[in-house]
Amino acid sequence: MRLETTRIDIGTTRPLVLLNTVDATELGAHPLDRLRIEENGTTTGIVKVTDELVEQGVLGVTEPLHHVRGPIDVALAGTPQSVQYVRKKLNDIELEDDELEAIVKDIHENRLSDIELSAYVSAVYANGLSLQETKHLTRAMTDIGRQLSWDAPVVADKHSIGGVAGNCVTPIIVSIVAAAGLTMPKTSSRAVTSPAGTADVVEVFCDVEFSMDEIESIVAEANGCLVWGGGVDLSPVDDAIIRAENPLSIDPPGQLMASVLSKKRSAGSTHVVIDIPYGEGAKVESLADSRELADDIKRVGAHLDVAVTCAITHGTEPIGHGVGPVLEARDILAVLHGEGPESLRLKSVRLAEMLLTHCGVDASAADILESGAALERFRHIVAAQDGDPDVEPDDLEPGSESTTVRAERSGVVTSVDNRQLCDLARRAGAPKDSRAGLVIHKSTADPVEPGDDLYTIYAETGNKRAAAETLAADREPIRVRSKTDALVEQR
Amino acid sequence: MRLETTRIDIGTTRPLVLLNTVDATELGAHPLDRLRIEENGTTTGIVKVTDELVEQGVLGVTEPLHHVRGPIDVALAGTPQSVQYVRKKLNDIELEDDELEAIVKDIHENRLSDIELSAYVSAVYANGLSLQETKHLTRAMTDIGRQLSWDAPVVADKHSIGGVAGNCVTPIIVSIVAAAGLTMPKTSSRAVTSPAGTADVVEVFCDVEFSMDEIESIVAEANGCLVWGGGVDLSPVDDAIIRAENPLSIDPPGQLMASVLSKKRSAGSTHVVIDIPYGEGAKVESLADSRELADDIKRVGAHLDVAVTCAITHGTEPIGHGVGPVLEARDILAVLHGEGPESLRLKSVRLAEMLLTHCGVDASAADILESGAALERFRHIVAAQDGDPDVEPDDLEPGSESTTVRAERSGVVTSVDNRQLCDLARRAGAPKDSRAGLVIHKSTADPVEPGDDLYTIYAETGNKRAAAETLAADREPIRVRSKTDALVEQR
Repeated sequence: MRLETTRIDIGTTRPLVLLNTVDATELGAHPLDRLRIEENGTTTGIVKVTDELVEQGVLGVTEPLHHVRGPIDVALAGTPQSVQYVRKKLNDIELEDDELEAIVKDIHENRLSDIELSAYVSAVYANGLSLQETKHLTRAMTDIGRQLSWDAPVVADKHSIGGVAGNCVTPIIVSIVAAAGLTMPKTSSRAVTSPAGTADVVEVFCDVEFSMDEIESIVAEANGCLVWGGGVDLSPVDDAIIRAENPLSIDPPGQLMASVLSKKRSAGSTHVVIDIPYGEGAKVESLADSRELADDIKRVGAHLDVAVTCAITHGTEPIGHGVGPVLEARDILAVLHGEGPESLRLKSVRLAEMLLTHCGVDASAADILESGAALERFRHIVAAQDGDPDVEPDDLEPGSESTTVRAERSGVVTSVDNRQLCDLARRAGAPKDSRAGLVIHKSTADPVEPGDDLYTIYAETGNKRAAAETLAADREPIRVRSKTDALVEQR
Repeated sequence: MRLETTRIDIGTTRPLVLLNTVDATELGAHPLDRLRIEENGTTTGIVKVTDELVEQGVLGVTEPLHHVRGPIDVALAGTPQSVQYVRKKLNDIELEDDELEAIVKDIHENRLSDIELSAYVSAVYANGLSLQETKHLTRAMTDIGRQLSWDAPVVADKHSIGGVAGNCVTPIIVSIVAAAGLTMPKTSSRAVTSPAGTADVVEVFCDVEFSMDEIESIVAEANGCLVWGGGVDLSPVDDAIIRAENPLSIDPPGQLMASVLSKKRSAGSTHVVIDIPYGEGAKVESLADSRELADDIKRVGAHLDVAVTCAITHGTEPIGHGVGPVLEARDILAVLHGEGPESLRLKSVRLAEMLLTHCGVDASAADILESGAALERFRHIVAAQDGDPDVEPDDLEPGSESTTVRAERSGVVTSVDNRQLCDLARRAGAPKDSRAGLVIHKSTADPVEPGDDLYTIYAETGNKRAAAETLAADREPIRVRSKTDALVEQR
């Protein structure tokens, strides 16, 4: 059937298409069926049916398909074959190379419904992936995206599997490593469920969305870059998979490895440090599990000719004081100036040191930071990315609406809850409101007196500050206990 | 936030709601977030965001929510707690009674997204349900729907777990059992993936959609009924679960038992025969598995005070000759007249006999059928359901467009493929075109000569007949082999 198109203004992550009832009947299409759309290659739409919103002869296309222009040919598409392989994995049978390839291809071309995609993620989570399967999956995910290549023989990279608040070590590490003369073209993500992704934080200083060509010229000029990876389509399948994993808060290890390493491979990286924060509430809970994950990642990396080394780090506490784009940016700039939170400085230097050694470079990360060479390199990158290289920490103002939560009793801090802090920062408006977030004043084992500041909430509007306060009253992200605390309160 | 509402004409099975971008920003709502809607109780909508389709202050509601009328209060709803229990099941940990209850409740109130729902079904499929979990799940599914109750001390019922083409034994069984003096208020489903559900077939004779009160008066008058179960909301959660199972073609045994038995319990049935067709291509493939399923179903039934007996039957071949609403209706009427396909007569009589014995009634199903008492009772029910009681088999005309597929070589029929026959009948237009479908002329082990009729395709339009012919040319639903068949053809 040949149809004209009209854009339908519905924000949706799925490629929905609207068919008039008459056309739907003729095609035999029902809601949730897949429509094959031929226009410069093939793409797929998920059918909704309407009497009023589009006329007969016209296909309504939502945002993910706004590039599709009629007249186009459409036909009802059957169930993709890879659904069989998803069922096979649900039956706990090991998948072959070409079966994993078919799944990756169908996810890429939007052929799997949410139900099928979730079944894939659930099957991989419930039944696991063998090392062999993980290797094949990584290769398939790498092959489907675009690939960057660099003239340098050694291309440095780092990645954190995530789950820690603050933790914005990347801009500091890139500045140190690039200052040491290595090429480090770093792509980062925006926040999905966290209060700030690295790309959100860097955006406080300069632009982060660039084309492949632009990235190449930035790196040629500055040895490194700090850009948003979503703009260059390095592992397009990953976003779809993450969309299914997030609501379930699952991140099966095999899939995690394939996601991370396929992106690194596509980015042209040769030497990578992977940060595995572990501990209660982190993605990996035990030291034994984090060691096992590290060994597996290294094996899969070797299969792809990427030299991987892993840093197992403490994942139970925030790194740095600020949480939220501007507040983290302020910490970063302070550390580059030789000040700022010790936890952020220490972790950045240790990881940079590991990466330098891993790349065979004999230089001291601490010296590069202390000498001011890292700050200079950071300014160089910010300028190359169209930002103001002369920005100072005091230029970075948090939101004007703030509240400080104080200790009600004396004792020591016994736990700092990453997830609760992230929820609070998001409620205050981060990452969309870049000046919203938290500053954390205490960490575990700090002694506390009544009235001591525990953390401060910043927001851009009174409404959002109030919303965060309401949530804060319900939670206890920083827990203070004294030896005499058998009874906390009576009510 | 208080909003007016407007109906959006998009046919969808999910309760989508459209928010203007301004309102969405204020609520902090993103696509796929859940919105809690307060209006005569609480319901849930899945958020889409738009600049144009609805104005600020107005909520666009799609079909499943067309009953919602503004002004209404809406608020962002968090992730429902039951998602945690879904994750627990993915981790292969046995679920508690209240956890299964929470999942069922959230499915019922539309709080789970497709991704979460599919993860539930996948987890149950990959990790299974214990007998204890199945009992709790069944109880939870029963409690959430409406419940019928009857004055009769014994209420007979039957169910088939499905997967066999034709197989419309239910109207015959109900006619025999009701003629024997038992109460048999049968609710049936419409086709989901098959060419005709029992309700679609009965609709050829009379109405099938009735209210609870109407059903009660039909049963009071005729001892039995043959109505559509979807109209009386006996197990509302089941439809949502089936919607997730179908695209994956999975039907985990624990979930299947809970679905079947919760419906029977809600229908007020006391004595039930469950038909388990087994064999290659059926839902249960081996005799051992079908025996195990039967034992489990009986145990769960006992927990709910439903006396269950199971019939393990041959599931590899169609029952009867016709496939599709009118063609199956014709077979049924012929059997009631003492003619018609032997396979349909035999299976109906055997199951009716089992059900009579199970209910403690000493009567011969074969005698009731042969005496014409079953036909008389059938006419009584049809009349009570506003149909023409005097319909004759010849009144039931199949579609005027037909093609007969014939044998190309001599030999014997070695296999008849249920799934392929169902696909063909659907392609010809069944069940929507009630006169479309197939008539099957041969069954396994029948000797065949070149030119013998194998099956006839009927359609209501030339287009659909041609579409079915094209599909038929590609398949071989009835396979003929001779001893000398080492080489089938050279090409």
